[in-house]
Amino acid sequence: MTGSPDIREGEVTVGFDPAQTPDASVHFIGKVQSPWSPGDCPKNLRQAREDGRGAVLVLKPAFAPALAGLEVGQAIIVAYWMHAARRDMVVQAPRHLDEPRGSFAIRSPNRPNPVSLGTVTITAIDLDAGRVEIDAIDCFDGTPLVDIKPWLPTIDTPA
Amino acid sequence: MTGSPDIREGEVTVGFDPAQTPDASVHFIGKVQSPWSPGDCPKNLRQAREDGRGAVLVLKPAFAPALAGLEVGQAIIVAYWMHAARRDMVVQAPRHLDEPRGSFAIRSPNRPNPVSLGTVTITAIDLDAGRVEIDAIDCFDGTPLVDIKPWLPTIDTPA
Repeated sequence: MTGSPDIREGEVTVGFDPAQTPDASVHFIGKVQSPWSPGDCPKNLRQAREDGRGAVLVLKPAFAPALAGLEVGQAIIVAYWMHAARRDMVVQAPRHLDEPRGSFAIRSPNRPNPVSLGTVTITAIDLDAGRVEIDAIDCFDGTPLVDIKPWLPTIDTPA
Repeated sequence: MTGSPDIREGEVTVGFDPAQTPDASVHFIGKVQSPWSPGDCPKNLRQAREDGRGAVLVLKPAFAPALAGLEVGQAIIVAYWMHAARRDMVVQAPRHLDEPRGSFAIRSPNRPNPVSLGTVTITAIDLDAGRVEIDAIDCFDGTPLVDIKPWLPTIDTPA
């Protein structure tokens, strides 16, 4: 929990560190190459899109074959692990909100399981190299990758 | 990997079990109460919606405060752990596809990190009890919950 924010007024923690009580494990499939460092990372994917700079998903070689079937122009959901996040916060008071809100009601990286999601578009793909170029991402360079899924409007938009 | 499917023609595995080489840990925040058992579970969220039966997200009491701010009618993304999935498959040949496809190009539960995602709508919520009723889900009763996020069209649809 290095780099965790301090607790602000109205914030509540769960009283234990979910990272220390594991129910299952995650294996990182690769990492994100992005133009961002912790100091200048966009606050969300909308801001990253406005910037206009893309990013690259770089898979570990063993997982490169799992990209077969993805195509340029296709929308994908990228799941990435916010390893600097604080996992014990259940109510948070981000500065842009009027009042504290539950961690499951906001998109903060600080959550019991710090997986962030972004829906992005493939701009180039190199299957042999295990590299997928995308239009934008809101995480800093080196962020671990958890999953890539095709975005499907029948599942990924409300009924 | 109990209950794993056998390998079909054209399928490829990564040669190790990602569950045995952890990079990070997941802490389950609760579980799904659904009308489905492994034998009759809908194949996807679209099928589950057509059925018309809802489901309930039941949080562990310690995480109930993290629901504060969610509202009836709101769309959320539910992330759930497919614990019976096979995690070593990189190319798969599901029966509904003409040819094998990479695990990251399909929505199969069999993937290195078996987190499934569904975008659903809140139909009722009980903050004190940590219960969120939703319109539909495509996983069977007792499936562990990993995360709940508000669905945001600016992040969760392609640019």
